[in-house]
Amino acid sequence: MIYDSTICAVSTPPGVGGIAVIRVSGPDAIIICDQLFASSFKSLTNQPVNKVIYSFIRHKGEILDNVLITVFRAPHSFTGEDTVEISCHGSLYIQQQIMQILIESGARQARPGEFTLRAFLNEKMDLSQAEAVADLIASTSAGMHRIAMNQMRGGFSGELKALRTQLLDFSSLIELELDFGDHEDLTFADRPELHALAMKIGNKIDDLAKSFAAGNAIKNGIPVAIIGKPNVGKSTLLNALLNEDRAIVSEIPGTTRDTVEETLYIQGQLFRFIDTAGLRDHATDRIEALGIQRSFEKAEKASIILYLFDLTQEEQEDIVPTSQWLQKFNKPILLVGTKNDIARRNPIHTSGNVQVIYISSKEPADVERVKNHIVRLSNIQKVTDNDVIVTNVRHYEALCSAGESVSRILEGLENNLPGDLLAQDIRECIYYLGEITGGEIATDEILGNIFSKFCIGK
Amino acid sequence: MIYDSTICAVSTPPGVGGIAVIRVSGPDAIIICDQLFASSFKSLTNQPVNKVIYSFIRHKGEILDNVLITVFRAPHSFTGEDTVEISCHGSLYIQQQIMQILIESGARQARPGEFTLRAFLNEKMDLSQAEAVADLIASTSAGMHRIAMNQMRGGFSGELKALRTQLLDFSSLIELELDFGDHEDLTFADRPELHALAMKIGNKIDDLAKSFAAGNAIKNGIPVAIIGKPNVGKSTLLNALLNEDRAIVSEIPGTTRDTVEETLYIQGQLFRFIDTAGLRDHATDRIEALGIQRSFEKAEKASIILYLFDLTQEEQEDIVPTSQWLQKFNKPILLVGTKNDIARRNPIHTSGNVQVIYISSKEPADVERVKNHIVRLSNIQKVTDNDVIVTNVRHYEALCSAGESVSRILEGLENNLPGDLLAQDIRECIYYLGEITGGEIATDEILGNIFSKFCIGK
Repeated sequence: MIYDSTICAVSTPPGVGGIAVIRVSGPDAIIICDQLFASSFKSLTNQPVNKVIYSFIRHKGEILDNVLITVFRAPHSFTGEDTVEISCHGSLYIQQQIMQILIESGARQARPGEFTLRAFLNEKMDLSQAEAVADLIASTSAGMHRIAMNQMRGGFSGELKALRTQLLDFSSLIELELDFGDHEDLTFADRPELHALAMKIGNKIDDLAKSFAAGNAIKNGIPVAIIGKPNVGKSTLLNALLNEDRAIVSEIPGTTRDTVEETLYIQGQLFRFIDTAGLRDHATDRIEALGIQRSFEKAEKASIILYLFDLTQEEQEDIVPTSQWLQKFNKPILLVGTKNDIARRNPIHTSGNVQVIYISSKEPADVERVKNHIVRLSNIQKVTDNDVIVTNVRHYEALCSAGESVSRILEGLENNLPGDLLAQDIRECIYYLGEITGGEIATDEILGNIFSKFCIGK
Repeated sequence: MIYDSTICAVSTPPGVGGIAVIRVSGPDAIIICDQLFASSFKSLTNQPVNKVIYSFIRHKGEILDNVLITVFRAPHSFTGEDTVEISCHGSLYIQQQIMQILIESGARQARPGEFTLRAFLNEKMDLSQAEAVADLIASTSAGMHRIAMNQMRGGFSGELKALRTQLLDFSSLIELELDFGDHEDLTFADRPELHALAMKIGNKIDDLAKSFAAGNAIKNGIPVAIIGKPNVGKSTLLNALLNEDRAIVSEIPGTTRDTVEETLYIQGQLFRFIDTAGLRDHATDRIEALGIQRSFEKAEKASIILYLFDLTQEEQEDIVPTSQWLQKFNKPILLVGTKNDIARRNPIHTSGNVQVIYISSKEPADVERVKNHIVRLSNIQKVTDNDVIVTNVRHYEALCSAGESVSRILEGLENNLPGDLLAQDIRECIYYLGEITGGEIATDEILGNIFSKFCIGK
């Protein structure tokens, strides 16, 4: 696919630094960049490719900067197009000026992800690989990084592509049968073979769809609900957990307006603590019913429940009913008796999915124990280099849809449905598998949606 | 000069972006980087220099990233040492991991400005050029950028170095005279020639020292005092001025604890608005005497004075004494009658360095008029490509000291002082000129001070 436009963007992180890199890609990349270096050498066209050249940019009679330039020639570049990389001093002024000159010379500011979009459209990578580039850049933990890198290097898309191609072959054969509609006994597409392939695809899809839960936990954090009556020390514990590593803590807006979620890495795994802002320890004047409702919602959304109670206020017999109520969620539950520094109690005995510890949030060793419990309860699937894990909601949804088509194909085969009905389900399955890898069916709208989530310059 | 240590740093701005560049410089740069690419090719040693190589980093059996690597060989690199540049995906995780592998392999994290320090010590540039690198990176306006670029490309240091060398020659001749101390009539150093050289150096120093005021205005902003009685609309005008261009407005702590300074670009020139926080419009209960004292201090510090008065409160005859009091500052003064929208008055007639306008801060056209007046009153020296301008306090102080030595040399020559007294002043002058360009006299302490102001990675 060929583009008329040549795009440019600062590809390094926004801000001031020692150096910044500006990327120009498109059919006129070299001619446009020639404008920058008009007085340095005759033309970049004559310069060797992939070679770093030291030069300077002169604009309106003044030296703007000393730079390093590298020319990459299509198709041997990231985008597959002619590309020029300019490494300049990282001042905002210089970055802006170079961008301005490039735009005046005929390039246009790249949209988010547009370099990667072009790499995809020029078949340097498939769609799921292109999407992995954004995940790779956003990854902040070893787990997220590993999954994104696997996906970028081919991951599951190679296998899906191969299965899809086999299905396409069957589809052609069945369409052929339909062309000979008069001869009902004519079957080009071997039914047992199709059944075996559908089974294989179905199993693969099942594995991938199942991996989504683990992938999502790694990417977005394992949700942990902290619940309990007002003033039991929920904020205190949360702050104690977060304070350990302030640098990598972020507060993200939750799905509902009055919920904030705070994320924290514990032993390399991301956890997402769900807290209801309006219900923090200040909410003593709220009616208890509301508190229970909120706690219920939080417990519903979480993978792990921390139920806090105040050791100075509640006796063992007060906790038992709550503990029983919590068990119906069928999730790992940790009962945390707080303020252990001022009220020492005897251990409570619990069973099933409920564990209990006594802590003081002021005691770093106790906070550490809470963390260890959380990690243990999370029962994280260890991701290895070869694991194929789906983290992308778009992929997950396409897999689910493809899976439904597969079920219908299998059902159809078992019921000896005629070819035209089978063909419809096969086409659907092909379509959904193609949505993941891109294939020939990616629409501008889908692509626009996917790449708008990228940063500019990539 | 040779270093044992190999340093590494992320040279692109801190944060997440499409790509990041990590620089490794020092005698072991290539050997250390070989660790990153152990499985990709035998050794970077055999790779062509200045050539961009596509490879991948494998660590602990897993692929960390696909990267572009370039090897620069001493002395043909920015630092003058063997240097490897790694262009990786701009994820924080990848940046941190690569840095960690490099450090585990024997490199150490570079200190701020250490790459440029090495460039200076390896005689790739003199000290004032090295300092200009930091100014270039920090520059946010055309004026600042132009001055830094001039200085980086040699600027005044070449001329000063040449004059210093001539002075060194005279110094040697005079020392020679001193060796023949018995023959008082023996003069190797031609006195009229020395006088001419000292005059030349003196004039050059004068020009440069004078340029410091202009340079400082460009670099740090032209100081503008906004004064007036409480409630005349000082904050309102300041906010109206600033609101126009919020994106490039910053609030910097002032020199005194209760002063804030806000900076603003008007027509490409930086202005610094001096406001006394404690005296803002809330200070109605303060005694008038304190107000006058503060206004006085602000007017002292500024290059331009804006005196605001309330058209609804004050008559022409109230303003006249203030106007006369202000004139003694001998600075451009703009009397600004505020709240013109609710009280229209006849024009006030003023003279000398005082101008007057009536405005409403709510009226964008009026705010624009204030800006135009400020620019006109600032009477900015237009900096052209060839202008040599001193912006660095360290240079300015060295120039002043060198200038004093020159005065004493000239005085000594005119009074026919003996060679040993002249020699002392010549040595001092040589010393101070050398402080600017580095020369042989830069101590570790001076260098430490200078380069600690750089960003890491440059």
